[in-house]
Amino acid sequence: MTEGQKIKVGVLGATGMVGQRFVQLLADHPWFELTALGASERSAGKPYVKAAVNWRQTSEIPSNIGSIMVSPCEPQHFDGCRLVFSGLDSSVAGEVETAFCKAGMAVFSNSRNHRYDQYVPLVVPTVNDDHLDIIPAQQKANGLTTGFIVTNANCSSTGLTVPLKVLDDAFGLEACMVTTMQAISGAGFPGVPSIDIIDNVVPYISGEEEKLEIEPKKILGSFDQNGFTDKDFKISAHCNRVAVSDGHLECLSVKLKGSPTTEEVITAMESYTCEAQRMGLPSAPKQCIVYNEKPDRPQPRLDRDAGKGYTVTVGRVRPCSLFDFKLTILSHNTILGAAGGALMNAELAKYKGLL
Amino acid sequence: MTEGQKIKVGVLGATGMVGQRFVQLLADHPWFELTALGASERSAGKPYVKAAVNWRQTSEIPSNIGSIMVSPCEPQHFDGCRLVFSGLDSSVAGEVETAFCKAGMAVFSNSRNHRYDQYVPLVVPTVNDDHLDIIPAQQKANGLTTGFIVTNANCSSTGLTVPLKVLDDAFGLEACMVTTMQAISGAGFPGVPSIDIIDNVVPYISGEEEKLEIEPKKILGSFDQNGFTDKDFKISAHCNRVAVSDGHLECLSVKLKGSPTTEEVITAMESYTCEAQRMGLPSAPKQCIVYNEKPDRPQPRLDRDAGKGYTVTVGRVRPCSLFDFKLTILSHNTILGAAGGALMNAELAKYKGLL
Amino acid sequence: MTEGQKIKVGVLGATGMVGQRFVQLLADHPWFELTALGASERSAGKPYVKAAVNWRQTSEIPSNIGSIMVSPCEPQHFDGCRLVFSGLDSSVAGEVETAFCKAGMAVFSNSRNHRYDQYVPLVVPTVNDDHLDIIPAQQKANGLTTGFIVTNANCSSTGLTVPLKVLDDAFGLEACMVTTMQAISGAGFPGVPSIDIIDNVVPYISGEEEKLEIEPKKILGSFDQNGFTDKDFKISAHCNRVAVSDGHLECLSVKLKGSPTTEEVITAMESYTCEAQRMGLPSAPKQCIVYNEKPDRPQPRLDRDAGKGYTVTVGRVRPCSLFDFKLTILSHNTILGAAGGALMNAELAKYKGLL
Amino acid sequence: MTEGQKIKVGVLGATGMVGQRFVQLLADHPWFELTALGASERSAGKPYVKAAVNWRQTSEIPSNIGSIMVSPCEPQHFDGCRLVFSGLDSSVAGEVETAFCKAGMAVFSNSRNHRYDQYVPLVVPTVNDDHLDIIPAQQKANGLTTGFIVTNANCSSTGLTVPLKVLDDAFGLEACMVTTMQAISGAGFPGVPSIDIIDNVVPYISGEEEKLEIEPKKILGSFDQNGFTDKDFKISAHCNRVAVSDGHLECLSVKLKGSPTTEEVITAMESYTCEAQRMGLPSAPKQCIVYNEKPDRPQPRLDRDAGKGYTVTVGRVRPCSLFDFKLTILSHNTILGAAGGALMNAELAKYKGLL
Repeated sequence: MTEGQKIKVGVLGATGMVGQRFVQLLADHPWFELTALGASERSAGKPYVKAAVNWRQTSEIPSNIGSIMVSPCEPQHFDGCRLVFSGLDSSVAGEVETAFCKAGMAVFSNSRNHRYDQYVPLVVPTVNDDHLDIIPAQQKANGLTTGFIVTNANCSSTGLTVPLKVLDDAFGLEACMVTTMQAISGAGFPGVPSIDIIDNVVPYISGEEEKLEIEPKKILGSFDQNGFTDKDFKISAHCNRVAVSDGHLECLSVKLKGSPTTEEVITAMESYTCEAQRMGLPSAPKQCIVYNEKPDRPQPRLDRDAGKGYTVTVGRVRPCSLFDFKLTILSHNTILGAAGGALMNAELAKYKGLL
Repeated sequence: MTEGQKIKVGVLGATGMVGQRFVQLLADHPWFELTALGASERSAGKPYVKAAVNWRQTSEIPSNIGSIMVSPCEPQHFDGCRLVFSGLDSSVAGEVETAFCKAGMAVFSNSRNHRYDQYVPLVVPTVNDDHLDIIPAQQKANGLTTGFIVTNANCSSTGLTVPLKVLDDAFGLEACMVTTMQAISGAGFPGVPSIDIIDNVVPYISGEEEKLEIEPKKILGSFDQNGFTDKDFKISAHCNRVAVSDGHLECLSVKLKGSPTTEEVITAMESYTCEAQRMGLPSAPKQCIVYNEKPDRPQPRLDRDAGKGYTVTVGRVRPCSLFDFKLTILSHNTILGAAGGALMNAELAKYKGLL
Repeated sequence: MTEGQKIKVGVLGATGMVGQRFVQLLADHPWFELTALGASERSAGKPYVKAAVNWRQTSEIPSNIGSIMVSPCEPQHFDGCRLVFSGLDSSVAGEVETAFCKAGMAVFSNSRNHRYDQYVPLVVPTVNDDHLDIIPAQQKANGLTTGFIVTNANCSSTGLTVPLKVLDDAFGLEACMVTTMQAISGAGFPGVPSIDIIDNVVPYISGEEEKLEIEPKKILGSFDQNGFTDKDFKISAHCNRVAVSDGHLECLSVKLKGSPTTEEVITAMESYTCEAQRMGLPSAPKQCIVYNEKPDRPQPRLDRDAGKGYTVTVGRVRPCSLFDFKLTILSHNTILGAAGGALMNAELAKYKGLL
Repeated sequence: MTEGQKIKVGVLGATGMVGQRFVQLLADHPWFELTALGASERSAGKPYVKAAVNWRQTSEIPSNIGSIMVSPCEPQHFDGCRLVFSGLDSSVAGEVETAFCKAGMAVFSNSRNHRYDQYVPLVVPTVNDDHLDIIPAQQKANGLTTGFIVTNANCSSTGLTVPLKVLDDAFGLEACMVTTMQAISGAGFPGVPSIDIIDNVVPYISGEEEKLEIEPKKILGSFDQNGFTDKDFKISAHCNRVAVSDGHLECLSVKLKGSPTTEEVITAMESYTCEAQRMGLPSAPKQCIVYNEKPDRPQPRLDRDAGKGYTVTVGRVRPCSLFDFKLTILSHNTILGAAGGALMNAELAKYKGLL
């Protein structure tokens, strides 16, 4: 695809942590061309390089994007964009995203506001790409022909759902107890004050346990022309914040309907593939899941960048004396679990002819 | 008690991390006078201030102890000591402690070697002080009149057992799922390499999950003249190492026989008292458990020093969708969970007339 | 002194990080009784335990203080207070402190606003207590009989000034090159975002190098009835923020007029004493400076609490190939370098009959 | 160059931290093919994937290298290798490297042992590539025709020398005061115990200040057929270890012969280029130095990967009240400052026809 043929896209909430990741991931994308950036009133009217004063990525702002003038998050400033990615704060995301949808744009949102709307799919791209097939029903319900909304899941839900999908497909999932150790980047910027996390762990993240106990049920659930039906299983979550920059680690105990051996669980993990891989999407990782057999893995610093942040690393599958198996999983919270997930969702939509 | 009347005590493994804590806690103890220090061949023959090259406590070596000459860990060098505290590595603790016991000394050991001996009590001082009453049977079995061995539990087991005791006493305990986030000081010195823990979590501690799944059953169990009987309940553990200097945080989901309200669980925690308090032991904390009602507590940096490190802080009691309740607990791993626990065990033994 | 005879004091900015330290240090002070707490409009009208939502100290809010009702920072709400300690932000400190002074109260301020007023002393309590003797001239100039203002220095200046005082007294100081590694608590709350400091160093603190290059000259300077005269020497500073909770480490290269040996420099450090010690003030440390001869000290985690946070630890005195000596120093930035320094200044003022 | 035409190379000390970096950087090198791996007796005889139990890189062991059998560090096991990279510990590097040299191989060493040999160049590849021209003289002196030794500098010296080269070339360098904040990866594995660095700074690295005060003089110096002559200027160094995984930060005050403006210094930094760039070497970065104009840069986490770890980031150039200028620099200590530096030195040697 030559530059001129790329699909023009915008980013809402472009100066925040998730917005920065969108910018970074879109800098050189083969299908999408970033042409518009939206942020708060304070940033609007400045070139992005001046507006993104809190840029905290390990690469510099791409020069072709740094000069884009930041605009308010209103559809008229996103002329020519077929779709927008939203990294907006949930305090404003709901209405803004609806406005962009009504204006005819596809919205791929990382915010929680529309996740439970009747016809809005909640998609982890390596898990439930088929949920995008509800979009025609969504458009019909809204009386729209081009605009629609797709949401991706909360960062800790995203990582969790990938191995749960494998377990459910292969052995039937009954219950999951999960304790998370989540990276500070998940809290945005400025996010967690350093005095709270140096030599410390904070055993609480507002609203997080609730999301983690609900979202995977919709993601692993089914849908028809009337909307979504949750998968029937139970999750109980303990969420903690730890002194890690990127990468959410989660300890799981799972109860299954079947009675596989440890080896069978590991084999199921290793052999899992998803549609995004078969479609050959630009962001699809070589492996959805890497199983690391070392006894002390996965670890955030060593494993978060597996598959450029799109691969979930699983380790330590072993019997649980209360449930069936214990395992530890690691996912990149701002790539697969946020901006990258939304981006791959857009790639899926493009492949499926929705754009 | 005047200085001359204090009970003379020694420390085995005095240069290690646990040994250093023993030295610090014994520096000014009202009942015990530290007169002998044992360590490896390499350290023997030097004054403690020279031998303890890896001293890592936040107070300097007490001057009256710095000048004590370090000796090998052999009973003949501990002349006059009624008891010894052992912070020895488990690779040598078994035989050395037996030798001191046979030589007529009471041994209060932090090592795992004798924890499952038939007549050796495994004591968390604020939980099962009554297990010390097996000592006469132990002495009889060993043909000894003054020597005996008392062990304290693994650091993560110790913190866990205090609230489990409360729950079991009040409501009957059926099962506990626990995920730990453990401090690096628990690994001794040099312990965890810094490159493994900066911006990272290590989801594995060798042998730790096994200890955590077994020890609480002996501690909460019963005994008679033939030894100990485990309490009948199940534990499943996930153990992680985090970038925290001191203080083990543990996320629990518990299944109870009774059906208390959240408020009743909290009240049970807050009203728990132990014998060590009633006896007025020097190290007994004002409260065995502090319940912190803030939503984001307990936290290692803020709560580990509660009760000078002898109090367990509990927080976040709330319903669990899979079991009955979720809660978060925090204990000081090198005070209550190691040297301080052994010290309070010795105070209990003294009070009970065993010394 | 019985409770009723204690001097009544208030704290301005009581909910901030420095304010919290004031509360902690005043909880059980033998001379001062904390009776009034001032904070912003948002906090006013609530008991302190509710207002101090960001309490981040390792001890809980003292119960007798938690119930004090927080008031706005206006003199009429501090009835009966002979003096106030100010931990106010510099955006508001200037006018508020002036108002309290005019209302007849002594103000001991940690803020920078009045540090360079003609008659306001800038006092590091273990260095230049004699500067308090300008107070009568200040009162005369302001037409006041009881109100006056005393400031303490910036946290990094404070630690630096103690060894510089020793060097200047003993050998004559010509120049000092200093690089700081400063703790995050120095930035207040929420202060440094955690994403900026995990696995990182920030080589910049706004306005800090300027303060560090100027304040020591006033502190080590002289005064007469017309005000203060700076000491004549040069400082060049590099300031960095590191992932440390408390304790500022500073690497110094100093140029002296005299030519002492390394041993003479160390002896001068070790033998330094101050008036606060001779007066027997409640907060005066046993030693103003501890010299630690180990090659890798001082260290923040191990040395910050020396002398309960009022002692400066010095180490690594060695020749400098460019200047005369290199040395490393460590001071507690929120005790000696902030709230504790102001408190000891008030003790000095009381001893000198100024209160 | 096709696979068969690549130059065969080996790595000595392949399981250590620097050795791991060599393996990672050589995995897919266009000129060099890694065919032999040497390590200690303990590792010899195992495939690398089993021997490298302490692998701590963020990418997995390349599969084509994981199966190479590790051999002892003796020349006969490196048959066919034209050169070896040495990441050996200095306790053994001296003799081993000499043996490989005598056996006819070129040795590119990261160890300090041969850095001051009369004819051995000490090369920072973006600074003094011309020092490689002494190799014929070295070979002649040793009676060798193919074997020779090239060393690269200590990690903190490397980063420092790049901007010093610029300053000396443009303005004449007289003196440099430097304070380092060095990453833990520089200490190898296990290296710094975590308890020493969490919530802490260690103001000492054994032997480091000595190296930092001497090495830049040889690197910036000249040579003739009799060996090297140090550049005439003075350095005074303070070295500290901080809680950073990779990336050495250094605060410099420099005294110059000329009197440039701040802008001229910055321009000199930005316009600096080196031979490695002009040669188009595979590892040469686009820029030797990036000047970051933001007030709080460079920072280790954000800037260490600039130029894939081969670019030095400079910031905060400003006047110094004691010397002429202050500035802050950041370099990647295990890429440019260790394995990457040695690799680029080998590329230089290849380009110059020495291999």
